[in-house]
Amino acid sequence: MIIGKVISNVVSTRKYEGLQGYKFLVIQPTYGSNKDYIVAADEIGAGIGELVLVSQGSPAQFALKRNAPIDAVVVGIIDSEPNIKE
Amino acid sequence: MIIGKVISNVVSTRKYEGLQGYKFLVIQPTYGSNKDYIVAADEIGAGIGELVLVSQGSPAQFALKRNAPIDAVVVGIIDSEPNIKE
Amino acid sequence: MIIGKVISNVVSTRKYEGLQGYKFLVIQPTYGSNKDYIVAADEIGAGIGELVLVSQGSPAQFALKRNAPIDAVVVGIIDSEPNIKE
Amino acid sequence: MIIGKVISNVVSTRKYEGLQGYKFLVIQPTYGSNKDYIVAADEIGAGIGELVLVSQGSPAQFALKRNAPIDAVVVGIIDSEPNIKE
Amino acid sequence: MIIGKVISNVVSTRKYEGLQGYKFLVIQPTYGSNKDYIVAADEIGAGIGELVLVSQGSPAQFALKRNAPIDAVVVGIIDSEPNIKE
Repeated sequence: MIIGKVISNVVSTRKYEGLQGYKFLVIQPTYGSNKDYIVAADEIGAGIGELVLVSQGSPAQFALKRNAPIDAVVVGIIDSEPNIKE
Repeated sequence: MIIGKVISNVVSTRKYEGLQGYKFLVIQPTYGSNKDYIVAADEIGAGIGELVLVSQGSPAQFALKRNAPIDAVVVGIIDSEPNIKE
Repeated sequence: MIIGKVISNVVSTRKYEGLQGYKFLVIQPTYGSNKDYIVAADEIGAGIGELVLVSQGSPAQFALKRNAPIDAVVVGIIDSEPNIKE
Repeated sequence: MIIGKVISNVVSTRKYEGLQGYKFLVIQPTYGSNKDYIVAADEIGAGIGELVLVSQGSPAQFALKRNAPIDAVVVGIIDSEPNIKE
Repeated sequence: MIIGKVISNVVSTRKYEGLQGYKFLVIQPTYGSNKDYIVAADEIGAGIGELVLVSQGSPAQFALKRNAPIDAVVVGIIDSEPNIKE
């Protein structure tokens, strides 16, 4: 998983039907040099600015009620910043 | 998923038979430092210049009618640019 | 797999229920130029500062008792630093 | 998928038996900043210098007659260079 | 797959039981700009300094006798350096 900050919502009206009902968030990795944005489905209710845990790839399917073409999911909200000195 | 812009079509006449009938688009990630092009199958009908949501890896299979050796699929067209300040 | 050092714990109270009971660690790759942090589940009992072997993606599921949306797992603790001259 | 150019053959006599009978090609991505070589199985008959479409990861299995430890496959030969201005 | 050179062994006594009996090697990609080390399971018997073919992700499972949390496997030993001019 990676730790990232919720930056924005993403709205898509014309989308694959398996994506209906999901909320999608733009997440930016918080630590390290790779700051490339990830769009993740969220059913936990993370808010803009919160630190979250994002799971990617096939394992992310296990957070969904039914299989869908979603490759990243918010699986947790971080309680407090981990002790990372950069 | 990543957010990218549709740049071009890709035409391949000699291809694996499981790819017949799909339209393939070259997508460039819109945000972040990684601007490397991805070729994704599209059945939604995204046009050149549109912002789309691309799902990659095994989960992308769930957007296909039958399994195929396709590792990226356009799963949505973005309504408006998300609020990302770079 | 990659070799990394355990940097910190990560605590998440509001999380997907399939993640209950797992301990999550922030791991930093030890060798090479990519030093981007990975959050991995740990059931072996790795401590802060230890060198560990982390497996990523779908194969990491085979270290779990039941499927969960976890994309990285600590699968071993390294006995001694491998002979890598950088 | 990515678009790449066929650079060379790769010959391996001592190999896992599931790889017997496949031809392996070194492919270099044509566009973008990541030019790192990929070795892909080819059953389409791509020649040195041709532009090809490469599918990676688990989805590549759907181009194989039987499952094998192959993580990249040439799935198509590109008719003409796509309209990408770099 | 990627082509890499065998750099070192890795020994882990405290490890997930599904990893018992495997030999693990540190591999460095030989060509391209990404030189980040990969730890791969080896059952072919590759020696330090040899050029090998490494398969990553879920497809690597097809080289194993039973499923295990292993995300990279040495699937072949390269006969001679491919014709890559860097």
